[in-house]
Amino acid sequence: MPEFFRVLTPADAWQRLCSHYRPIPRTETIPTASALDRVLAADLVAPHDLPQFPRSTVDGYAVRAHDTFGASPSLPAFLDVVGEVPMGAAATLAIHSGQAAIVHTGGMLPAGADAVVMIEQTQKADEGSIEVLAPVAVGENVIQVGEDVRRGDRLLEAGHALRPQDIGGLLALGITTVTVAQPPRVGILSTGDEVIPPDQTPGPGQVRDINSYTLAALTRRAGGEPVLFGILPDRRDALEAGVRRAFAECDIVVLSAGSSVSYRDMSVEVIAGLGQPGILAHGISIRPGKPTIVAVAAGKPVFGLPGNPVSAMVLFDLFVTPTIRLALGADPQAVIRPQVQARLARQVNSAAGREDYIQVRLEAQDGELWAVPVFGKSNLIYTLVRADGVVQIPLDSLGIAQGAMVTVTLYR
Amino acid sequence: MPEFFRVLTPADAWQRLCSHYRPIPRTETIPTASALDRVLAADLVAPHDLPQFPRSTVDGYAVRAHDTFGASPSLPAFLDVVGEVPMGAAATLAIHSGQAAIVHTGGMLPAGADAVVMIEQTQKADEGSIEVLAPVAVGENVIQVGEDVRRGDRLLEAGHALRPQDIGGLLALGITTVTVAQPPRVGILSTGDEVIPPDQTPGPGQVRDINSYTLAALTRRAGGEPVLFGILPDRRDALEAGVRRAFAECDIVVLSAGSSVSYRDMSVEVIAGLGQPGILAHGISIRPGKPTIVAVAAGKPVFGLPGNPVSAMVLFDLFVTPTIRLALGADPQAVIRPQVQARLARQVNSAAGREDYIQVRLEAQDGELWAVPVFGKSNLIYTLVRADGVVQIPLDSLGIAQGAMVTVTLYR
Repeated sequence: MPEFFRVLTPADAWQRLCSHYRPIPRTETIPTASALDRVLAADLVAPHDLPQFPRSTVDGYAVRAHDTFGASPSLPAFLDVVGEVPMGAAATLAIHSGQAAIVHTGGMLPAGADAVVMIEQTQKADEGSIEVLAPVAVGENVIQVGEDVRRGDRLLEAGHALRPQDIGGLLALGITTVTVAQPPRVGILSTGDEVIPPDQTPGPGQVRDINSYTLAALTRRAGGEPVLFGILPDRRDALEAGVRRAFAECDIVVLSAGSSVSYRDMSVEVIAGLGQPGILAHGISIRPGKPTIVAVAAGKPVFGLPGNPVSAMVLFDLFVTPTIRLALGADPQAVIRPQVQARLARQVNSAAGREDYIQVRLEAQDGELWAVPVFGKSNLIYTLVRADGVVQIPLDSLGIAQGAMVTVTLYR
Repeated sequence: MPEFFRVLTPADAWQRLCSHYRPIPRTETIPTASALDRVLAADLVAPHDLPQFPRSTVDGYAVRAHDTFGASPSLPAFLDVVGEVPMGAAATLAIHSGQAAIVHTGGMLPAGADAVVMIEQTQKADEGSIEVLAPVAVGENVIQVGEDVRRGDRLLEAGHALRPQDIGGLLALGITTVTVAQPPRVGILSTGDEVIPPDQTPGPGQVRDINSYTLAALTRRAGGEPVLFGILPDRRDALEAGVRRAFAECDIVVLSAGSSVSYRDMSVEVIAGLGQPGILAHGISIRPGKPTIVAVAAGKPVFGLPGNPVSAMVLFDLFVTPTIRLALGADPQAVIRPQVQARLARQVNSAAGREDYIQVRLEAQDGELWAVPVFGKSNLIYTLVRADGVVQIPLDSLGIAQGAMVTVTLYR
């Protein structure tokens, strides 16, 4: 039996995948305002300073700070008000020693001013002058030119997924379009003579397709574009034709495999025939999900996931989601997965040398959060529907005791 | 000064909002396969059992369990193989005592069988019979009718946001369309004579609009439909006309307000004039973000957020996101926010009676995660761009010591 037909740990299987998969993302240029969650294809650099003029952070009076030194309510500084800086326009006036100008929050400092006194620290002396009741330091209540960002600063790096504030930050600098990775096309195939489309009524022995749609939704979550290739019958020629079509049209192929032994053997043969280096892992030391195939053929990752929905989802999260991030040029480890700490409501056993993934419901009891295992055969889709998240039992662990704190990765 | 013109705590302001805002979501019926993240408008009940027939969970032989009792490698049970159950079809054969039928994973149990022996626990005796090497219990390796879901079971409740596995679960039952809440229309207005659209080049004293686009992205994240009403000049008539138009066309209005005192006064007047009960909070004991207006007029929430981007984002997260969830009929507290624990890299002071929100970067050092405060005036958008998340300092706290463990809510 060739070396690669052995069971690998999840980490080893991922390592092998990474060493054979070096995607170059296809890119497209789109409006920044529509680029939420998209992954940058290149570093972005500030084209100019931000702000481009010194701005007041308060409503008050632009002054020379020196004129206010020593000012107090009992000994205020008297300043002549020489004008008002309009919002959204250049400050055309200038102030000299002993003078002040009205300035609004966000307004431009006039020439000669180096600080702003808040209006609350002043009172009117007469029509044309004010009393300043407290001193201000040079630069106080002012945002300096380039204080937010300097021209030439690297703003965001290639591989970064844009968040709401990043969109605002880029638009603030007039960066109205961005070059981002195109979502990789992820071909999804379900298989099995017993599987029918969800809009049909199953006859005896038939079940509706679940995995195509669950995996398509997971693909979208990860930033990929799902392409459904439907349900393939349990025949070598049909399977091979379907897989080859998906392989030709897509960047990544995910086969939710028939579960019988003969069928699994057929999947292995079809995937192995797609190209070099071929199958990297055949079997992963994980439960559920052991009968998983990880392959790279001619530069494209191909996954054969178990047909049962719990295994398929666990394995997708573990392998396909980070592969889609790789395809986007993003750090596959930087996926933000919401997690909470909770106490395990009952003991869970595992085997050394195997990672276990336990579906749990969260329940608050006595002011503490408990993770209650949702046991059920991995063929049951409602095990997943009833679960709030999943707990990993590490490879070298024999289990987790009741009451132990565990990290629950939340489903959303 | 009327009672409502006082500063409220965030919790009190939210409470007042909830007591005056009782949205009835508009609904629409859409394909289940396209309903990821959509919020159910009604409880869903299982139309039939799942599975609808007893299914094998392994490849092997359907048997009467009784026939295998006491079987061992040295004393196997001999059974006649009377046929094979095809996948995706009714098991037309039946087995009797002393008989077995080939069955595949996911296949239907034939009449008379009550368990399945894994193929690994058998060996061929001759062409028509097998030896069973270990006993199986009644029901072993079988999913019973209704074991996944029983007809009439409540599957998912109104207000639940659909996850990938929920989509699979509903399609498994033939529920190919779902009735969900329509995204509430959230009208977004920016204001200020100094603000120009991002595609224009700012003249002296001008800045590009940031908040419209950051808040639009946050609206999408929360499940709402942003409707941008552009930039309003700093004039009472224009402000009133803009706000009234957004109020008429949308379900929720968010005004990212000009920051000068005169402007804030104008916003208060315009919002107060929209209808009853009007302004519920004018000022929130929070930093940044104190000058915030929370109102409900004629059943619609209206928010006046501070114009500076950090405040606007903190306040949006705290008030507008849960309001959008309310509008969708979802539990506003059930928003899953990814969080991590980290050590605070330096002391942060607060004031009692005020909630503080501190922007932080995350850094791994010596195997520990540290939250490094990103200090900066809240007028700086890049304070947010440089931050990985935010740390809340509670109302009654005077600050957090360096090295203390804090919960960081991650930006994404």
